[in-house]
Amino acid sequence: MCRWAAYSGADVFLEDIISIPAHSLIAQSQKAAECKTATNGDGFGIAWYGQRPEPGLYRDVYPAWSDCNLRALVRQVKSGLFLAHVRASTGSATSRNNCHPFTAGRWSFMHNGQVGGFEKFRRHADMCIPDELYEHRKGATDSEVLFLLALQQGLDADPKTALERAVARMEALSRARGATPHMRLSVAMSDGERLYAARYSSDSVAPSVYYRWSSSMGGWAVVSEPLEQTGEAWNELKPGAFLTLTGDGAEIEPFQPFLE
Amino acid sequence: MCRWAAYSGADVFLEDIISIPAHSLIAQSQKAAECKTATNGDGFGIAWYGQRPEPGLYRDVYPAWSDCNLRALVRQVKSGLFLAHVRASTGSATSRNNCHPFTAGRWSFMHNGQVGGFEKFRRHADMCIPDELYEHRKGATDSEVLFLLALQQGLDADPKTALERAVARMEALSRARGATPHMRLSVAMSDGERLYAARYSSDSVAPSVYYRWSSSMGGWAVVSEPLEQTGEAWNELKPGAFLTLTGDGAEIEPFQPFLE
Amino acid sequence: MCRWAAYSGADVFLEDIISIPAHSLIAQSQKAAECKTATNGDGFGIAWYGQRPEPGLYRDVYPAWSDCNLRALVRQVKSGLFLAHVRASTGSATSRNNCHPFTAGRWSFMHNGQVGGFEKFRRHADMCIPDELYEHRKGATDSEVLFLLALQQGLDADPKTALERAVARMEALSRARGATPHMRLSVAMSDGERLYAARYSSDSVAPSVYYRWSSSMGGWAVVSEPLEQTGEAWNELKPGAFLTLTGDGAEIEPFQPFLE
Amino acid sequence: MCRWAAYSGADVFLEDIISIPAHSLIAQSQKAAECKTATNGDGFGIAWYGQRPEPGLYRDVYPAWSDCNLRALVRQVKSGLFLAHVRASTGSATSRNNCHPFTAGRWSFMHNGQVGGFEKFRRHADMCIPDELYEHRKGATDSEVLFLLALQQGLDADPKTALERAVARMEALSRARGATPHMRLSVAMSDGERLYAARYSSDSVAPSVYYRWSSSMGGWAVVSEPLEQTGEAWNELKPGAFLTLTGDGAEIEPFQPFLE
Repeated sequence: MCRWAAYSGADVFLEDIISIPAHSLIAQSQKAAECKTATNGDGFGIAWYGQRPEPGLYRDVYPAWSDCNLRALVRQVKSGLFLAHVRASTGSATSRNNCHPFTAGRWSFMHNGQVGGFEKFRRHADMCIPDELYEHRKGATDSEVLFLLALQQGLDADPKTALERAVARMEALSRARGATPHMRLSVAMSDGERLYAARYSSDSVAPSVYYRWSSSMGGWAVVSEPLEQTGEAWNELKPGAFLTLTGDGAEIEPFQPFLE
Repeated sequence: MCRWAAYSGADVFLEDIISIPAHSLIAQSQKAAECKTATNGDGFGIAWYGQRPEPGLYRDVYPAWSDCNLRALVRQVKSGLFLAHVRASTGSATSRNNCHPFTAGRWSFMHNGQVGGFEKFRRHADMCIPDELYEHRKGATDSEVLFLLALQQGLDADPKTALERAVARMEALSRARGATPHMRLSVAMSDGERLYAARYSSDSVAPSVYYRWSSSMGGWAVVSEPLEQTGEAWNELKPGAFLTLTGDGAEIEPFQPFLE
Repeated sequence: MCRWAAYSGADVFLEDIISIPAHSLIAQSQKAAECKTATNGDGFGIAWYGQRPEPGLYRDVYPAWSDCNLRALVRQVKSGLFLAHVRASTGSATSRNNCHPFTAGRWSFMHNGQVGGFEKFRRHADMCIPDELYEHRKGATDSEVLFLLALQQGLDADPKTALERAVARMEALSRARGATPHMRLSVAMSDGERLYAARYSSDSVAPSVYYRWSSSMGGWAVVSEPLEQTGEAWNELKPGAFLTLTGDGAEIEPFQPFLE
Repeated sequence: MCRWAAYSGADVFLEDIISIPAHSLIAQSQKAAECKTATNGDGFGIAWYGQRPEPGLYRDVYPAWSDCNLRALVRQVKSGLFLAHVRASTGSATSRNNCHPFTAGRWSFMHNGQVGGFEKFRRHADMCIPDELYEHRKGATDSEVLFLLALQQGLDADPKTALERAVARMEALSRARGATPHMRLSVAMSDGERLYAARYSSDSVAPSVYYRWSSSMGGWAVVSEPLEQTGEAWNELKPGAFLTLTGDGAEIEPFQPFLE
């Protein structure tokens, strides 16, 4: 299990989300509240959009709480659209390529959750990645496969449907060759224009997702757990929901993975 | 605060202390029981004696729980005398040179504790290190200064007295320029022949130290907290005590830092 | 291109091969002589056999020339059978999982060479790895695939034939989907008992391999280039040859990859 | 010896200096042309000014040529004032705290050169750093001391004089306790407003410094060696000269270290 936070709106310093709030993502790396693993010390990453269509990417294998480069970077860089993640490994190695977010072209993607028994069918999952996307298969996580399958299924044309199909394929692999829980998912992703999030599980336990409009920042935050543990209200994204955040507001749709 | 474990006796695989016991040092890096900070993820180190008078040294900045090199090393290497440490930084950077154990010639040294307000008098502490030992001042921790002052005070000739004098000097610096608590100390150190430990504090709170003869391994273990949380009894080293472990047994003497 | 060195014989300190000789492997990491890339600074690794059937493994992403842990380790550890490697990446990331040697069970394996156009057919190569070995596919290199294919082809039963078959499969993939040169190979590998090396290429340029009995150490060294650039003679392993080193001597056989 | 490059002018992507030119700083990390050590693989760093008075700082211990974070960062970040450095250690450890640039408040500072016999008088140099700046003494390099002494001597009020005095003090320490060459210096530094460089040596061999106005970028570059090895002319900064680059142009003054 991991923790993540994302933002879309007026430009802010990354630290306004990542390190300044009382229960910031960096604080959560040491003491998460709504997570099976309180410590998320197996690496971290940030993807941020600036003056190019593609995001910048900074990932490393150290605990987020002690990385002086991360502190300096989020203090200096401003962005109106970014994703950030702190990792608690559920088995795969602590390496940069296993840290979220993952990126390809304009897309960035991060995940908290589980695909039950993934190690048993990792080869079969890898084989589902098409030739033309295999160069982006750099690590060994289930999350990276999920991202690449979603790209294959047409993230550019229809993000929600593409992610539903990708999740359905992975869930089917887990049912065929893996273990329970077959799919627990909380995803945030962006194409550099809009910020998307999804929450879903194949059983009754879906990883938490919250979102909120911040009038002080002039933007939307979407997080795996609230950045402050008191005060201004956070909205819970319900299981089986897909969230699209734009300048015009928040749109919620049902999220229903299905196999064609 | 940090956690440490040391061993002296018949050759064992390092993992017999460091990773195999139920509450092994690696387990403690994630969930320590008797420590202010449950997570000790700011680096680790091992110093072990083999066929040379000087110890081998392996230190790195990753959490001990995820380092595959550490796992492989402690599984492969046997030793009859070694020190191991997992670190929770109290301020100084996560860098190899700030990881324990520290070594110089035949000596190895590790510490858990506090020298109150050290950052305020770090320069004055550095000034106390003599020219001929300054090449060993590689990091920025209070613990490394303590070790070098003890070397200066004659660790080779009389380990207990040398450490008492070094502790007294650091405690005096903290009283003059630092903050409370002036000295909380649990040290383990070795010259490659014997294993020593000390427990002391300038107030009423001394970091815990336990030791035990293991008949299954044929050696002494001395630790900051027991490696199993049930079963065979561990002896508590009392505050103000200095422990010497040799093939002949355990000797306990009073530990009374004093300024000459 | 990379540099490697291996040893089999009486126990010696690893440094006797890795850092002490005038043109030691660590010296070669900065200034190799017979290599397209003089600098081999993209990580390193050592696998050594001791009191267990499986080797110890220490790999890291730093240049070998500056890693203090490597220096300390090879100074302290003795072994009668070990492999060591310094890496110059030909494309895949600098990560621990892409560093040689690779290990699985009792086997260790390292490689210098090229499989032309590998990135174009990496997915197809991964597909050739059987389910039961896929847990060992941790990185993204051609060399790791080669090792796993050799395991599949029966390294335990017949090392030479298994490696020939694995090389033939990879060469065929390169001919079908890759680029020239299809296969340039210099391998060293061990099962913990014997040390093997192979030299081969699909064109006229096979990476160099040398070997020598050292009477001072009482063992065989096999290397990608000599550890001293003058003095005692090194034997060149000819292209298309497979070398087996045991206590009884050196045996050379033809090495002829073929597709069944 | 190391390589560095700095820029002041209209906002450009950092990569326009650091990785895109044919003989970019990253190219120089592998194959420098005017440097005693062609390989500068012992870490790197960048300091860049943005929307805060203090610079951002990113330093790491890997070779610059293979660090994917560095590549992504310099591709994404724009700045009108930045310093970048690739390191070849002359003895002190490869650690983040020993990588250039160094920063304190608004200042950033980087250096290529030598202070002869520094290790022999490191303690004496450290003792010259005043209490109030000692918190910034994080590593063990001569360059960091030089920077802190310059701050003490009044970098804010008069950069040239402050640096002259700091250099004079270090040169005097080297004459008293060190070795030849007592001082070889090429420095670049900034207060977030202007970019300064200095070139000097106590003997006849001063490390090279070049500078140039780029009309395509609309700014000044100052470098330890040209970023292209042909084409548009670079101006050599003469030994014993101090360069100030502002929007109005380049000013050159004599640089004459002296002891008060």
